[in-house]
Amino acid sequence: MTTIDLNSDCGESYGPWRMGDDAAILKIVTTANIACGFHAGDPDTMVETLRLAKESRVSVGAHPGFDDKPGFGRRILPMAPEAMTRMVAYQIGAFMGMAALVGVPVTHVKAHGALSNFACVNRPAADAIVAAVKAVDPSTTLLAVATTELERAALDAGLNVASEIFADRTYEPDGQLMSRAKPGSIIHEADVAAAHTVEMVKARAVIAHDGTRVATPIHSICVHGDNPHAVGVAAAVRKALEASGVTVAPFAR
Amino acid sequence: MTTIDLNSDCGESYGPWRMGDDAAILKIVTTANIACGFHAGDPDTMVETLRLAKESRVSVGAHPGFDDKPGFGRRILPMAPEAMTRMVAYQIGAFMGMAALVGVPVTHVKAHGALSNFACVNRPAADAIVAAVKAVDPSTTLLAVATTELERAALDAGLNVASEIFADRTYEPDGQLMSRAKPGSIIHEADVAAAHTVEMVKARAVIAHDGTRVATPIHSICVHGDNPHAVGVAAAVRKALEASGVTVAPFAR
Amino acid sequence: MTTIDLNSDCGESYGPWRMGDDAAILKIVTTANIACGFHAGDPDTMVETLRLAKESRVSVGAHPGFDDKPGFGRRILPMAPEAMTRMVAYQIGAFMGMAALVGVPVTHVKAHGALSNFACVNRPAADAIVAAVKAVDPSTTLLAVATTELERAALDAGLNVASEIFADRTYEPDGQLMSRAKPGSIIHEADVAAAHTVEMVKARAVIAHDGTRVATPIHSICVHGDNPHAVGVAAAVRKALEASGVTVAPFAR
Amino acid sequence: MTTIDLNSDCGESYGPWRMGDDAAILKIVTTANIACGFHAGDPDTMVETLRLAKESRVSVGAHPGFDDKPGFGRRILPMAPEAMTRMVAYQIGAFMGMAALVGVPVTHVKAHGALSNFACVNRPAADAIVAAVKAVDPSTTLLAVATTELERAALDAGLNVASEIFADRTYEPDGQLMSRAKPGSIIHEADVAAAHTVEMVKARAVIAHDGTRVATPIHSICVHGDNPHAVGVAAAVRKALEASGVTVAPFAR
Repeated sequence: MTTIDLNSDCGESYGPWRMGDDAAILKIVTTANIACGFHAGDPDTMVETLRLAKESRVSVGAHPGFDDKPGFGRRILPMAPEAMTRMVAYQIGAFMGMAALVGVPVTHVKAHGALSNFACVNRPAADAIVAAVKAVDPSTTLLAVATTELERAALDAGLNVASEIFADRTYEPDGQLMSRAKPGSIIHEADVAAAHTVEMVKARAVIAHDGTRVATPIHSICVHGDNPHAVGVAAAVRKALEASGVTVAPFAR
Repeated sequence: MTTIDLNSDCGESYGPWRMGDDAAILKIVTTANIACGFHAGDPDTMVETLRLAKESRVSVGAHPGFDDKPGFGRRILPMAPEAMTRMVAYQIGAFMGMAALVGVPVTHVKAHGALSNFACVNRPAADAIVAAVKAVDPSTTLLAVATTELERAALDAGLNVASEIFADRTYEPDGQLMSRAKPGSIIHEADVAAAHTVEMVKARAVIAHDGTRVATPIHSICVHGDNPHAVGVAAAVRKALEASGVTVAPFAR
Repeated sequence: MTTIDLNSDCGESYGPWRMGDDAAILKIVTTANIACGFHAGDPDTMVETLRLAKESRVSVGAHPGFDDKPGFGRRILPMAPEAMTRMVAYQIGAFMGMAALVGVPVTHVKAHGALSNFACVNRPAADAIVAAVKAVDPSTTLLAVATTELERAALDAGLNVASEIFADRTYEPDGQLMSRAKPGSIIHEADVAAAHTVEMVKARAVIAHDGTRVATPIHSICVHGDNPHAVGVAAAVRKALEASGVTVAPFAR
Repeated sequence: MTTIDLNSDCGESYGPWRMGDDAAILKIVTTANIACGFHAGDPDTMVETLRLAKESRVSVGAHPGFDDKPGFGRRILPMAPEAMTRMVAYQIGAFMGMAALVGVPVTHVKAHGALSNFACVNRPAADAIVAAVKAVDPSTTLLAVATTELERAALDAGLNVASEIFADRTYEPDGQLMSRAKPGSIIHEADVAAAHTVEMVKARAVIAHDGTRVATPIHSICVHGDNPHAVGVAAAVRKALEASGVTVAPFAR
């Protein structure tokens, strides 16, 4: 029997500004990646999100990003790998402090936005993130995009790795995500995304737009909660997985 | 035989801006309170300071402050006690992340500037800081100003407490620091500060300007390293303590 | 015939975070106070809001606040009056830069949140704001809460002053706003707020909860656009004013 | 008779952190480029620097940079040209507000660090900066590195342009600055820098390390004041220019 995790980014509000519907998405997913105050979030938002996740029995992990609120962590800030390790270790530690306050275990780390994108294709950046996780808590799982440099770096370092695929994205024949710049890179229809996700989970492979299958372990599916449509897609994905006999449960227990 | 600790704030540079002579003061003190990125410091500065402290075999602790770099944490930012707890827990956690990166144990927490001043006279603020320390690491010591609400709150909560006096400050007959606004509140002469400090340590009491003694445990003496004169005072205090037979060693071992 | 202005705070989004429905409120009001990047806003948000206001033929002014995004400018940051003048002058200048980019005239300055509240009761703070306006553009109008120290300071300095009342707030017999901490301080019903506003405009006086009238010039009515209910109140206020024969038009022409 | 301006970046302190010796360099140069609060500086620092410059009868201009204090504006933050225009216009406007407070005319704009470096080789970035200057004050001079895209963009747009060379940098045969990554790119000896500068000013050309001369208008020489050695180089450059019969005076009068 197949078991799969559903993860979503959460806690991306900041001060007086709200983003996403965390309460809604936390009823659907089994794992939450919570912003750590650099690209989004702040101590109050982190605690509020951790409490919501705790109530919903959702696993929580640190979601570090570049220190860039105006750019929401979606721009690469040039920095040396050593500085990247420090930036990530700072955020993981801060997150552990907040999790201790709320009394929930930290199960994982997942890099955000440009930090993740860069580390997926750049081995020194991948190693920098892995080094931070290993130093701060070597028993933590790194949640990484399947078939990337980041996944490989974590495996090579002996970290626990959970590999994720995206419910609403199109893949290229080499197993990589199609660039958002290309038409058709985002799957907008909830039922299409759900069916495609179920197919990939059952196949234990990423399935590209031309049908190519790239075999890969899949532990988690990334969905979104930053707008009502995305929450609808996430709900459809969960429903389709369960209808097809897949158990939805946290990768971390 | 009397043993006493010498502590100083360190790691208060930020990005391209330097502050203080950490290398010099870390050769004199036995405990360093390291800024955590809110009133000063950043991940790179924290790691650099932690490495210097490690080389100098100086104990290290988190030095959280208000999130106010332009004001250097010397202004009270109005916030609810719960928010203060979160702000402090975030910084302690972040500091632990950086300490893990450098491979040094975290021995204590000491509040900075306006956060400390406020908590010394305001019990809800004191309790808020204590709650953060207890939640993130109940085995950590809180380094608090002697005879204050902050010291009492920590003792009441069963925390390990190290009580500090100031080498270069004048005390009032009630055991409190004389306001910096008053003439004579700061002791500028290194030898006077050193002699006064030795006298207080030997007396196990704060000694006010009128000679009044307020008995109190004294575990540490706060000195400064933010300018060459302050480093000179710190060196004189250490020399005078050792000349009088007092052993200078970290309160945490 | 009576003419009155309707003003609202706008441009309070920040980076990826949205706040309020500027497009909706700019169809109702005649004057917009636009955040300047300290408590909210950023260069992109400022230009976007200025363009919307230009399209809607709404007068625009700088809306400076404390440098405190996490607290949204609603906390008093302790600072000397000279520093307050600089903080305000910086924001007015920045706003003028953005207005030049969009090609719209700047008609006024209105202080935000805690900065306004503080200056309404503290003459040195009021003088500090007035000094900034005078230095940067002495021909600009200060939009100030009626019957306050800020209004008096501006008049004493010979500035152009527009005095505002609030559509949705209850007044005390001395003409001051009832504290938000008291029950009944906010008028939630759109029709009650509208009727009360029309009554005050016609009476040329603030009318307190006990019926006391405090005569005062009234040039503008402050409404809100940060949530759909507030937009509804604003629309009701405008409709009631026009129905009663009052002309709604910018105080600045 | 040849007249030349000497310019230096100033006002790069931030909050409690000092950088450079503005008082010393302002006795040497004739033009100051003052940080505007994005890569360095803040309203208090700006006013303090403007006052120092006013006392020293030094021309002042805005020195906008990327919004990146940790990186001191030395990293390229990816952004669209339109966003760059807004970022620069905001800072120029803010600077004009501060200059109005101090009562000094604003003579020019000079881009800082990575923003200048990028605009020197990227025409859309150059046009973005030029667009900001033109919109906020078309009578202002753009101080640009000689023989670059930024200089060309400003000339093409009909702006007043002052072209600068560097006293302490080595040039390539194509007239561009040698990369700092190469050995010999920085001239450390004060007398060598001074002699080289005098030679270039007299030749009305950039002179490369191999002797190649690239003819170019030269209105200003960039010197530095961020450390005592740099101040010494600046003083030597001024002395050598005057000794060779060149008049040192602001390009803007």
